[in-house]
Amino acid sequence: MSLNTFGHLFRVTTWGESHGPALGATVDGCPPGVAVDAAMIQHWLDRRKPGTSKFTTQRREADEVEILSGVFEGKTTGTPVQLMIRNTDQRSKDYGEIAEKFRPGHADITYWQKYGIRDYRGGGRSSARETAARVAAGGLARAALELLAPEVSITGYMVQMGGHRIDRERFDLSEVERNPFWVPDAGAAGEWADYLDGLRKSGNSVGAVIEVVASGLPAGLGAPVYGKLDTDLAAAMMSINAVKGVEIGDGMAAAELTGEANADEIFMGNDGQPVYSSNHAGGILGGISTGQDVVVRFAVKPTSSILKSRQTITKSGKATEIITKGRHDPCVGIRAVPVGEAMMACVLLDHLLLHRGQIGDAGGVIG
Amino acid sequence: MSLNTFGHLFRVTTWGESHGPALGATVDGCPPGVAVDAAMIQHWLDRRKPGTSKFTTQRREADEVEILSGVFEGKTTGTPVQLMIRNTDQRSKDYGEIAEKFRPGHADITYWQKYGIRDYRGGGRSSARETAARVAAGGLARAALELLAPEVSITGYMVQMGGHRIDRERFDLSEVERNPFWVPDAGAAGEWADYLDGLRKSGNSVGAVIEVVASGLPAGLGAPVYGKLDTDLAAAMMSINAVKGVEIGDGMAAAELTGEANADEIFMGNDGQPVYSSNHAGGILGGISTGQDVVVRFAVKPTSSILKSRQTITKSGKATEIITKGRHDPCVGIRAVPVGEAMMACVLLDHLLLHRGQIGDAGGVIG
Amino acid sequence: MSLNTFGHLFRVTTWGESHGPALGATVDGCPPGVAVDAAMIQHWLDRRKPGTSKFTTQRREADEVEILSGVFEGKTTGTPVQLMIRNTDQRSKDYGEIAEKFRPGHADITYWQKYGIRDYRGGGRSSARETAARVAAGGLARAALELLAPEVSITGYMVQMGGHRIDRERFDLSEVERNPFWVPDAGAAGEWADYLDGLRKSGNSVGAVIEVVASGLPAGLGAPVYGKLDTDLAAAMMSINAVKGVEIGDGMAAAELTGEANADEIFMGNDGQPVYSSNHAGGILGGISTGQDVVVRFAVKPTSSILKSRQTITKSGKATEIITKGRHDPCVGIRAVPVGEAMMACVLLDHLLLHRGQIGDAGGVIG
Amino acid sequence: MSLNTFGHLFRVTTWGESHGPALGATVDGCPPGVAVDAAMIQHWLDRRKPGTSKFTTQRREADEVEILSGVFEGKTTGTPVQLMIRNTDQRSKDYGEIAEKFRPGHADITYWQKYGIRDYRGGGRSSARETAARVAAGGLARAALELLAPEVSITGYMVQMGGHRIDRERFDLSEVERNPFWVPDAGAAGEWADYLDGLRKSGNSVGAVIEVVASGLPAGLGAPVYGKLDTDLAAAMMSINAVKGVEIGDGMAAAELTGEANADEIFMGNDGQPVYSSNHAGGILGGISTGQDVVVRFAVKPTSSILKSRQTITKSGKATEIITKGRHDPCVGIRAVPVGEAMMACVLLDHLLLHRGQIGDAGGVIG
Repeated sequence: MSLNTFGHLFRVTTWGESHGPALGATVDGCPPGVAVDAAMIQHWLDRRKPGTSKFTTQRREADEVEILSGVFEGKTTGTPVQLMIRNTDQRSKDYGEIAEKFRPGHADITYWQKYGIRDYRGGGRSSARETAARVAAGGLARAALELLAPEVSITGYMVQMGGHRIDRERFDLSEVERNPFWVPDAGAAGEWADYLDGLRKSGNSVGAVIEVVASGLPAGLGAPVYGKLDTDLAAAMMSINAVKGVEIGDGMAAAELTGEANADEIFMGNDGQPVYSSNHAGGILGGISTGQDVVVRFAVKPTSSILKSRQTITKSGKATEIITKGRHDPCVGIRAVPVGEAMMACVLLDHLLLHRGQIGDAGGVIG
Repeated sequence: MSLNTFGHLFRVTTWGESHGPALGATVDGCPPGVAVDAAMIQHWLDRRKPGTSKFTTQRREADEVEILSGVFEGKTTGTPVQLMIRNTDQRSKDYGEIAEKFRPGHADITYWQKYGIRDYRGGGRSSARETAARVAAGGLARAALELLAPEVSITGYMVQMGGHRIDRERFDLSEVERNPFWVPDAGAAGEWADYLDGLRKSGNSVGAVIEVVASGLPAGLGAPVYGKLDTDLAAAMMSINAVKGVEIGDGMAAAELTGEANADEIFMGNDGQPVYSSNHAGGILGGISTGQDVVVRFAVKPTSSILKSRQTITKSGKATEIITKGRHDPCVGIRAVPVGEAMMACVLLDHLLLHRGQIGDAGGVIG
Repeated sequence: MSLNTFGHLFRVTTWGESHGPALGATVDGCPPGVAVDAAMIQHWLDRRKPGTSKFTTQRREADEVEILSGVFEGKTTGTPVQLMIRNTDQRSKDYGEIAEKFRPGHADITYWQKYGIRDYRGGGRSSARETAARVAAGGLARAALELLAPEVSITGYMVQMGGHRIDRERFDLSEVERNPFWVPDAGAAGEWADYLDGLRKSGNSVGAVIEVVASGLPAGLGAPVYGKLDTDLAAAMMSINAVKGVEIGDGMAAAELTGEANADEIFMGNDGQPVYSSNHAGGILGGISTGQDVVVRFAVKPTSSILKSRQTITKSGKATEIITKGRHDPCVGIRAVPVGEAMMACVLLDHLLLHRGQIGDAGGVIG
Repeated sequence: MSLNTFGHLFRVTTWGESHGPALGATVDGCPPGVAVDAAMIQHWLDRRKPGTSKFTTQRREADEVEILSGVFEGKTTGTPVQLMIRNTDQRSKDYGEIAEKFRPGHADITYWQKYGIRDYRGGGRSSARETAARVAAGGLARAALELLAPEVSITGYMVQMGGHRIDRERFDLSEVERNPFWVPDAGAAGEWADYLDGLRKSGNSVGAVIEVVASGLPAGLGAPVYGKLDTDLAAAMMSINAVKGVEIGDGMAAAELTGEANADEIFMGNDGQPVYSSNHAGGILGGISTGQDVVVRFAVKPTSSILKSRQTITKSGKATEIITKGRHDPCVGIRAVPVGEAMMACVLLDHLLLHRGQIGDAGGVIG
């Protein structure tokens, strides 16, 4: 019900504004006994941190996380974990003009219309800076998964930037960490760098598609009919700033298939577990995991804060135009990769706990 | 938390199986004083009802709704409304074989793996029959919107079936009620009939894309950052059976745009309200409605119960093949149109109530 | 959030009015594989049923439960269980006068003030008849406890009626089923019969105190700091019609104790589990069960529908007086005994599932 | 669902341990435009602060609150408000012995049994120090009530300490601020000082009963049947550390009344609003406010950390005895007064928002 909260049993409430003193995540429901410390969380935050390449905002934030509660002698205690990140480089003078003008494509106008007051500094609550808190919470979720389901691994990467798509023939996960775009295609990485540099210099921005894959998940996670695993994943990804579409498995392309083509045929594997001839379903049938890879994709629209002049209005309804100076991401989709991974980690852990709660070990065996 | 429930203040819990005695929706939080009776709900149910054309399942269900509580002398009382639909044409003999075999692409296997027990008759809880309860709840939500926000109108239609897309140049909403596909394009309707008839006769099925548009919504509905209007819409649509992708506004195509192209420029309209040069955003910025049309699309995969033979396994792990006889929809996306509308109605009403609860009339005025 | 719902993982939503067509409980989150049928639920409903002695309302209701969903071949499937009870003896002519007048001490006036519409027949939603749905849900919870924690037993009984208290020296649980008051004191049963008969004949009513005890609960259930076991029990009991006070262990009398007297000293028992010298705490410390008996008491105010004339007003604000004819319980507390037991069963099952979800078998061992 | 959260629309999640770096409250759902600053919150915290008299713990905590989010230019923005309090005087050496021994009557043993790990320093999460976060949240709720319902006033006071009760004949609210016990009875204040001083010197402690009254609340707040106003108040008060009983209006004594005596007769007041001859109901009928004073009482057990020797066991199951040195409250009920007020403020604000959300101005008028 809490509108700044997600999750059922592993519940994450994020708080904080772009240019306030701090932001963070209040995490309730974490299992006890999870080995975690600030450095482990920091590892994930550093991947999302601004200013790591010329392709991300030049805002300089240490994004240093403090664990204020819920951890004792290096382990979670089962009580709420408070993960706080101080804002250090607010430079709010950059944002003077947007106190009066609404940026097209940005939440400026809707926050005003909803609340009648808005912290315009850096976008306030609507800033993508909020996603740092998600990444921190995701780091905790990963640590808990390490304890409860160590075989699970989660990897995100970019598969499209503007009109450029990766070549699935060249797909190589080991490339992801070698380029600033988290692209699993060495060829794409090079081309995209030139393309994005051009956009950046012209003061423009561009959208992207991110794919996040979870392997090693047991079958049986999820639930009918509104707490489905794919429902919760769709909500989690759609809640990320600037996301406009979410796909599971074949996604929108599923519309083009016949039933015959779409059916992932089932066989018995050598280890006595079902195996599938294909994974159109993206690892989820009827809202419940099959044990195959869970595959989610989401589209991130281009940053709306650009150096291009756009027509808009002021708070008092006057026509004007706006050029948003400041330090912005030419492709905010890049930094959405670790955010998508974090959301995946939180949702999977949540469903592991839910399943254990309702079902325990009563699930069905095949064979 | 309830996994068969959705909504924050207007909360819908559906219950029931395909071949049990009944199914329904328990709706809590409906405003009092809403004029409603069974006939008004029935109107919407009749649109989703099976057996209305050769393109939907030939199961004969009256889908007659009874209002068992929460309505007194033709008006809601503010207490829970129970909407019950008796199952009348179960014919469970049709489903004998699937007690042992798992249909590829179907929830049979995951329900078994999760629960260790499954009502295999007609898919049990995972049957698309559950969506009748959603449509009933949506009918109540529409009646409440009629009272609280009479200017809101909600229309769904099909924009793609298999590889066939509507021609947006020929878009004509008045066509929607004139063909069995709810297609706003007279030309498409004719072609699709032939195409689907061929698939049906060959025992195959196909996917579809549905678009649902809400007009007349006030600006300001929705909330950061996990109770966003688009987050809740994505969850609502993804929770519908067989849905694999959800888009808001430009959706996945937003990835291809530059920031300059994506920015919906803002002007003052003659009525003192902001108007926009375009609607890439689908009526939602920062998770909050702009007052433009809210535009959602979702992809429905093809029915997995087909007459084509597919490889699968039995509960005891033996390899086998399956042909699913029985009465199935060759394109389950058709009947998803009224379901998508119902989910839209429920989500919008819910956010109207939430907004009134937290904000009242404190929203910001422009000009 | 749903205001007609309680529970976290085992969630019960009740619906229905006193004189509508039916009422019931929609139960989500029940574990799968629980052996249950209508007769097992009926057993508990029959204990709450009206008209079983001259000390309860003479309304004749079969209170026959139908299981409409969530059970297949005698076992729960893990999907929502709908428990419906048809109203058969509404006789709404009895209630004509109260359409216009507000009964003092009754919810008539507040429902009107809140909703602007009220189903006045038999108290509508505010009728104690709603508790039949709780008892049905409690029957399901007991069946689930039988599977998951068979050592748990739950017993309720009356310990006070008006100014008459049981004599704890004569406490004998085996007496509870032998008298119409569920009193564990044969001497009290006789005296109370005469006392209540006198009140009944004079058209008056009286309050009562009920105690519910759960034995055999494992240590460790509950959670800080708002989902405490005692918090949820207090809410569960206070939500029962006419309840005005709730106590855990020593309850209000805890205020009179010194710390020295209140400390339940701890020893190791022969079975390697801690034992306590006393149970002032009522089996709960810091919101978490100790493994001792969980002891809850609640006070039920007297029925407000009485044959005594009281001053009141009409809907139009005119002074008047009211005598409530009809069929009412002279001590509604009697029938609250099975209701209190049902709420206890639901809360305990819910916390068992919650504990399993968050903690699994990671709890601490002593010794 | 979040177990460290309470509230429906105004949702408070508290976090933090007694001897960790900080504790606080994450408040989601606060209306926008509420004038608030740290000093306003601090006012309420100072009333709960330890060390203000010899009758409270001598731990020295500034209890200085920082507002980290959700407030901009002196007003709430409608986004989450983070209220943080740094712990400054932890002195954890005081607590060495309790790492191994369980204090009778304390949550030490149950936290261990539940979680298998516990932050034993100062009671960790189970410390009454957590209530500072509630008082901070309550301060915010009061500020919001000031905006939305300025006629509401909330006052708490002690009515019983050990066996000593106030004399209701001498009841004088103006005395509450003049003595260290918040007692509305000058005579009692003097006697209790001597009594408690004796207990304190002997290393013992004692329980208390607190009453909290809210005046000026409109009729119509609350909801059937599990989100009742009294249900939520009972849960709120029972969730406070050491509380063992909660009463609304006549509370447990309602059991002793006849229906005739209990009926608060209704008349029309001069201002066109109903008035009542009495308030046995404590301002709530059927879970909904009547407009009379809302009256809640709760019993606080004596502090379990005492200088008296008690029998207990160690983590390894060895018999031992324990004397708890350190700085403890001889009557923790004293500092529970501002905590009870804070919980009342949060619950009332929450129900105001809920009512506005579901009902708006559709409530019924009398006359």
